[in-house]
Amino acid sequence: MRFKFPLMAIGLEVAMIVLFSLFVQYETDHNTTSHINNTMAADMDGFLKLYPLFQDVHIMIFVGIGFLMTFLKKYGFSSVGINLLIAALGLQWGTIAQGMLHSHGKKFQIGIKNMINADFSTATVLISFGAVLGKTSPIQMLIMTIIEISFFAGNEYLVGEIFKASDIGASMTIHTFGAYFGLAVAGVLYRSGLRRGHDNEESVYHSDLFAMIGTLFLWMCWPSFNSAIAETGDKQYMAIVNTYFSLAACVVTTYAFSSLVQHRGKLDMVHIQNATLAGGVAVGTCADMTIHPYGSMVIGSIAGIVSVFGYKFLTPLIATKLRIHDTCGIHNLHGLPGVMGGLAGIVAVAMGASNTSTMAMQAAALGSSIGTAVVGGLTTGAS
Amino acid sequence: MRFKFPLMAIGLEVAMIVLFSLFVQYETDHNTTSHINNTMAADMDGFLKLYPLFQDVHIMIFVGIGFLMTFLKKYGFSSVGINLLIAALGLQWGTIAQGMLHSHGKKFQIGIKNMINADFSTATVLISFGAVLGKTSPIQMLIMTIIEISFFAGNEYLVGEIFKASDIGASMTIHTFGAYFGLAVAGVLYRSGLRRGHDNEESVYHSDLFAMIGTLFLWMCWPSFNSAIAETGDKQYMAIVNTYFSLAACVVTTYAFSSLVQHRGKLDMVHIQNATLAGGVAVGTCADMTIHPYGSMVIGSIAGIVSVFGYKFLTPLIATKLRIHDTCGIHNLHGLPGVMGGLAGIVAVAMGASNTSTMAMQAAALGSSIGTAVVGGLTTGAS
Amino acid sequence: MRFKFPLMAIGLEVAMIVLFSLFVQYETDHNTTSHINNTMAADMDGFLKLYPLFQDVHIMIFVGIGFLMTFLKKYGFSSVGINLLIAALGLQWGTIAQGMLHSHGKKFQIGIKNMINADFSTATVLISFGAVLGKTSPIQMLIMTIIEISFFAGNEYLVGEIFKASDIGASMTIHTFGAYFGLAVAGVLYRSGLRRGHDNEESVYHSDLFAMIGTLFLWMCWPSFNSAIAETGDKQYMAIVNTYFSLAACVVTTYAFSSLVQHRGKLDMVHIQNATLAGGVAVGTCADMTIHPYGSMVIGSIAGIVSVFGYKFLTPLIATKLRIHDTCGIHNLHGLPGVMGGLAGIVAVAMGASNTSTMAMQAAALGSSIGTAVVGGLTTGAS
Repeated sequence: MRFKFPLMAIGLEVAMIVLFSLFVQYETDHNTTSHINNTMAADMDGFLKLYPLFQDVHIMIFVGIGFLMTFLKKYGFSSVGINLLIAALGLQWGTIAQGMLHSHGKKFQIGIKNMINADFSTATVLISFGAVLGKTSPIQMLIMTIIEISFFAGNEYLVGEIFKASDIGASMTIHTFGAYFGLAVAGVLYRSGLRRGHDNEESVYHSDLFAMIGTLFLWMCWPSFNSAIAETGDKQYMAIVNTYFSLAACVVTTYAFSSLVQHRGKLDMVHIQNATLAGGVAVGTCADMTIHPYGSMVIGSIAGIVSVFGYKFLTPLIATKLRIHDTCGIHNLHGLPGVMGGLAGIVAVAMGASNTSTMAMQAAALGSSIGTAVVGGLTTGAS
Repeated sequence: MRFKFPLMAIGLEVAMIVLFSLFVQYETDHNTTSHINNTMAADMDGFLKLYPLFQDVHIMIFVGIGFLMTFLKKYGFSSVGINLLIAALGLQWGTIAQGMLHSHGKKFQIGIKNMINADFSTATVLISFGAVLGKTSPIQMLIMTIIEISFFAGNEYLVGEIFKASDIGASMTIHTFGAYFGLAVAGVLYRSGLRRGHDNEESVYHSDLFAMIGTLFLWMCWPSFNSAIAETGDKQYMAIVNTYFSLAACVVTTYAFSSLVQHRGKLDMVHIQNATLAGGVAVGTCADMTIHPYGSMVIGSIAGIVSVFGYKFLTPLIATKLRIHDTCGIHNLHGLPGVMGGLAGIVAVAMGASNTSTMAMQAAALGSSIGTAVVGGLTTGAS
Repeated sequence: MRFKFPLMAIGLEVAMIVLFSLFVQYETDHNTTSHINNTMAADMDGFLKLYPLFQDVHIMIFVGIGFLMTFLKKYGFSSVGINLLIAALGLQWGTIAQGMLHSHGKKFQIGIKNMINADFSTATVLISFGAVLGKTSPIQMLIMTIIEISFFAGNEYLVGEIFKASDIGASMTIHTFGAYFGLAVAGVLYRSGLRRGHDNEESVYHSDLFAMIGTLFLWMCWPSFNSAIAETGDKQYMAIVNTYFSLAACVVTTYAFSSLVQHRGKLDMVHIQNATLAGGVAVGTCADMTIHPYGSMVIGSIAGIVSVFGYKFLTPLIATKLRIHDTCGIHNLHGLPGVMGGLAGIVAVAMGASNTSTMAMQAAALGSSIGTAVVGGLTTGAS
């Protein structure tokens, strides 16, 4: 038992090194033999051009999500520490899993988009981690990382390559998927003792300030998240602008409704830390479509309201009725706004904001994301 | 009373959405009809090129200013939380106010410079917030955000379009304006009970460390702030280099004079947190002029000294004599160094460091910034 | 005594301003007279392209290293505060020292690479600072900054210009050099009372969380550090990719071995804060060589293990046997992994991963870095 965690971690790392030696090439390996130098220079130029966006996504994964979960006074180390472990392992496995799926088992090259996608794949695990924080051991998290990213890569392939659905900011494939995967695991792990009388589940003044570091970096970098893998040019520009204004609108409605539902009109730090980000989640699917800034502000405004109501009314209900204990309330930050993002995508396609996808394909992508997540989560929880 | 804040916030957000739907277009809307594709691609390229600078400014607004004000142990939530609300509302209103002024009431397009300018406009409110922290309610801050940005946009139009003065890093239009606006409001709100025996106005060890997060991110990103809207090429390069060395010199003199004025030579954390940034403020107006690195170091050195003396001697004086209570000492970080920046700009123009402006126009810009700020602040405080 | 620190600081800043006025020019000064405009525009373009990497390095120096050292509950202010002072003074002196060496005493121009190199030169002092934290006064740190950067610039010139060795991420010239310089100073300053019964050398829950801010920003920005001054194109791309995967692998082995060596398998926060970064140090020298992602993962994995063993077994040994007290354990984060990086560079060159250097030159560079550091450190400690 004592050596189980170190041995499994070492074994996984050795496996990663072997897989990388077999399948992963530099982007330069191929080009130098078959393309002209010009192309290579242009590629490298593109690499540096997207590198700042990649770094923003990186900040979200490591600082943003890590510190967002420090609001519970006893779980500060767990959240930041295990967050780093999950992300470091996950990005290696995500690189392999996604790379092999898209190259159909052949060798593939590491470009900036692979690196961004690998970061994305770890995000799903980190979102799910928010539901099971305090319920799992590091060893269980290693297993969950490997399994969840496999399911994620499968679903992502289905959504992108088979359905050819649009989901640029990954409302469906990351947020919805991560949330329902985590809730399914949490449902399996439910023990009645966990729900009540948890001293650990309290925040103190400084832990709430640490969490705000997470919130603010997530908030600021979200436009990069939703635009990082968008088509260069108009679509990338629109993804940045739409996400930016959606988030701004979301903050205002979050504060308004937080004050509205609270006793005596005080603001609730949990809402401020989390619901202010729902606008980034909800605008994800249609971020690169011509929904216009005011359209994204409408989406963001509603997302903030939905998220606050989720924290106030739905989370207690889910805990008592469905016996699912959601430590960080990921259902309200990722689940509900993610589904809302999927629906907004369908509406946007219906209104002609995009011509690369159809309503049916968007609906299939949403269904597939929820379905795969629940099945994957139940499997993981049981194992 | 209980519903006043949420209702006002919702009303403002609805108004923003309506204004955006009427006036705001994508940058692509216009171009696709009248320009060739090449131009568009170049525009997008410029967008991504300035995007990292924009993100740095964003970090300053949300993390930098927010955490800088957490040094008071009881106001941590207020400063970070209300900071986010002000900024999110302000950037929407700033986009509209500035856009409509410059387009003379017609539809306008959202480019990276509008987004940077919108961030700038919120900075003025956040600076003023530092003077009234602990004295105002969230609802008063909503009102102040709308009024102050209107005055700011007016003054900025006057300085840039009418006087055609140079103020690339906004020593005058943001720092001086924000400081005197805030002081005027604080003067109106003055109540004698506030000044003395305030337990809330103490820092504790950890709150001072949180504030250092703000300081460091502001310090690092300031070169981006002063260069973000500079003319691409030489001027942008000079704005970065000048600001960088001004800040470095400012740190050294701040430490020296903090030790000099303190009892027994100890360093004062308030000075380290704030005065080290005065070099960025003071070099703002002439950042893109050929003042040479050593010139900017002279400006930075003096700014650090002025700011330390301000904290040590002027703030207590202003509180007792002028009956203005300046919670965070913004007069020393933004007011004095801002005026110094305006004066440095006049000197630099006189010495031929720029050929796009005249001494008279620079002086007019400085006077207008102070005048508009005081009038605007008194109006706001009274309302 | 009381005025010694302020007077020395002011004197140094005046000296810097004089040196800058004599030797430092804008990059534009020269070009406008002798080159065509096209070149200039391209230069500026390169400036902005590397600016995000520069900002990442900047984050590492000011936020990363500063907060990493806050883990000791009593030294939070010292580490963040003195860190800022050292860095601000050091980057001015580093600009001058390196610039004059490379221009052979003539005037030189400030480009983005000078700015990155100046940041690098401060890093050595900040690394050494980690060994003497709590043992030195601010005035001693001013002296050490000036002396150490002089030695650093000398050694860097030797390694780069005379040996023409490869050390793109500066495993040898920064990490090894900084570590052994600091240890030599700490050895001279050793007093038996310091070693034992130090209440100050304890961490508390929140100080460990502050340190994680440092760790995470260092971890994320390290690929920029190792690639910032690499040749644009393939080499820069490889430096980013190799460092990225080395760090990821390092995290996994660090967690595994931290659990292995700890009583009852618990994770140690000191290991998580520090050893997770050893992969970035160790891959530094050969980061831009074709070592392939799996090669860098091997290096990172070993670095994590070496660093954990260093903290667990070597640091106590060095304190008791060699009478060197290493406050932050820099020998384990920078010393050992730095030497390992130097050796990895020799092996990589032997295996043909680079054709610009030879094994002998790499070995000479490693020896020179250690030798200069020890001599310089002993001199500094004695003075």
